Amino acid sequence: MFKRLCLIGVGLIGGSIARAVRQRDLARQIVGFGRERDKENLESAKRLKVIDEFFIDAQSALTDADMVVIATPVGAMPSVFSILKEAWSNQTLYMDVGSTKGNVIEAARQVFGVVPENFVPAHPIAGAEKSGVEASVVDLFENKRLILTPVPETAVSAVARIEEFWQRLGSLVSIMSPDRHDAVLAATSHLPHLLAFALVDMLGRQDEQSEIFKFAAGGFKDFTRIASSDPTMWADICSANRNQLIPLIRQLMSELAKMENALSGEDYQQLFATFTYARNARQRFLDQLNNEL
Amino acid sequence: MFKRLCLIGVGLIGGSIARAVRQRDLARQIVGFGRERDKENLESAKRLKVIDEFFIDAQSALTDADMVVIATPVGAMPSVFSILKEAWSNQTLYMDVGSTKGNVIEAARQVFGVVPENFVPAHPIAGAEKSGVEASVVDLFENKRLILTPVPETAVSAVARIEEFWQRLGSLVSIMSPDRHDAVLAATSHLPHLLAFALVDMLGRQDEQSEIFKFAAGGFKDFTRIASSDPTMWADICSANRNQLIPLIRQLMSELAKMENALSGEDYQQLFATFTYARNARQRFLDQLNNEL
Repeated sequence: MFKRLCLIGVGLIGGSIARAVRQRDLARQIVGFGRERDKENLESAKRLKVIDEFFIDAQSALTDADMVVIATPVGAMPSVFSILKEAWSNQTLYMDVGSTKGNVIEAARQVFGVVPENFVPAHPIAGAEKSGVEASVVDLFENKRLILTPVPETAVSAVARIEEFWQRLGSLVSIMSPDRHDAVLAATSHLPHLLAFALVDMLGRQDEQSEIFKFAAGGFKDFTRIASSDPTMWADICSANRNQLIPLIRQLMSELAKMENALSGEDYQQLFATFTYARNARQRFLDQLNNEL
Repeated sequence: MFKRLCLIGVGLIGGSIARAVRQRDLARQIVGFGRERDKENLESAKRLKVIDEFFIDAQSALTDADMVVIATPVGAMPSVFSILKEAWSNQTLYMDVGSTKGNVIEAARQVFGVVPENFVPAHPIAGAEKSGVEASVVDLFENKRLILTPVPETAVSAVARIEEFWQRLGSLVSIMSPDRHDAVLAATSHLPHLLAFALVDMLGRQDEQSEIFKFAAGGFKDFTRIASSDPTMWADICSANRNQLIPLIRQLMSELAKMENALSGEDYQQLFATFTYARNARQRFLDQLNNEL
């Protein structure tokens, strides 16, 4: 599908893309690009044969690349776009895989003046609390949802080609507006992460004073799994999507206030009704997950 | 260890106790007691050979029982104690396995005037989001923590015997005050459950309007697992432990307000510091879980 795929950022997502591309033979060559301080990770990626070669120099990395994948934390996008601008080619397809879309598109607009027609914003709904190229796996995107959020400037042919790319990696592709993407992900991913971090922050301090984790069990382990995610990545994501996230935090606080009132007013029926609705809603989610995938 | 063990409530916990007792040959006979409306479940329990026999009549169930285990939802404890009072025997050991302890002890005090010396409050830190005798398993308590919360009236010999019982089922027994138990469990179990229910209640309503669950992934699935727990049981537990739970809900709301402020003030460092502390605290929890068990 491509002659030379250049990966900017070879971590969990970038590395997993490279592995899947190689397995399905979608690119003749895969190279990585990073800064001086990424060298160790890039060397690991090469040693693991995830990439063929890596470069610290952008010009060398980008030469002859017909596909460029930006898989850095979302906070790094503005500086990545500035680097890419120097060597931008209309013959090349560009795609990011960031977890937020509005701010990535905004960063592109800032750097280029307009969003380039050959840049397609994408977000694979896949991940893990682990990070780094060592955690990358060949089947991370198989049977997983992937969202493309083209803007009016984006070329239809570029979107079609990126859609085909992800379908060949086994993903279920949806197309929606960047705003809708950011609203949906704020609810299903960013808010739960923020909440897990906030809860474990609070309980961790209590644990330091009086050993409570000793008596926590399996439910706690699962509930808090996402609090083991990478802090840099998630501080980036939450900051980038704060406009969607803040109203949801407020809504959750009023939901908690409702629970507090039900408890202090001994309104058993309210508690029971809320818990029952939630249980049924989660069952709907599970049924969907099992049926569609 | 016992001639006849009488189980009041043969669900996930009661059934798992019965299975483990039988496997380790700790009682010659295991019988179940329930109300008319529990008959179907008791028949399943007998068919599954979890219990030898069951009774709808308390007198028949309790005759010759030298060990009585109360494994009903915590909301049912007052009526269970009233039934037991009729046939109370000083030769018998009594134990409950409820998830809250202060209110169970208070219910005993209400019914008996004082907490009987041969009643030992216990709580196995084990469970699942499934319920009912069909979900019961023989090894539910192996390598799991178990907390005993005797009061000053409780006979030392009764505590020793119940401790031995649980150790023989493979549990790691701790003894603490009912207040400390309720405070610890409010933090590590009741708050996370309430929170998961509240979040899924809120997002479920959003999903009805605009299909968000379709784009939720593995992190969401784990985070919300406990929202599939039994609503009756959890409305009971949260109500029973509301005095411990309400201050924690308030604390979490102010933690969320702090996160909201960090986001709106673009205080990236605050977010990053909170997420990093949480990630490290969870690692401490995981290390403890792996080392101790």
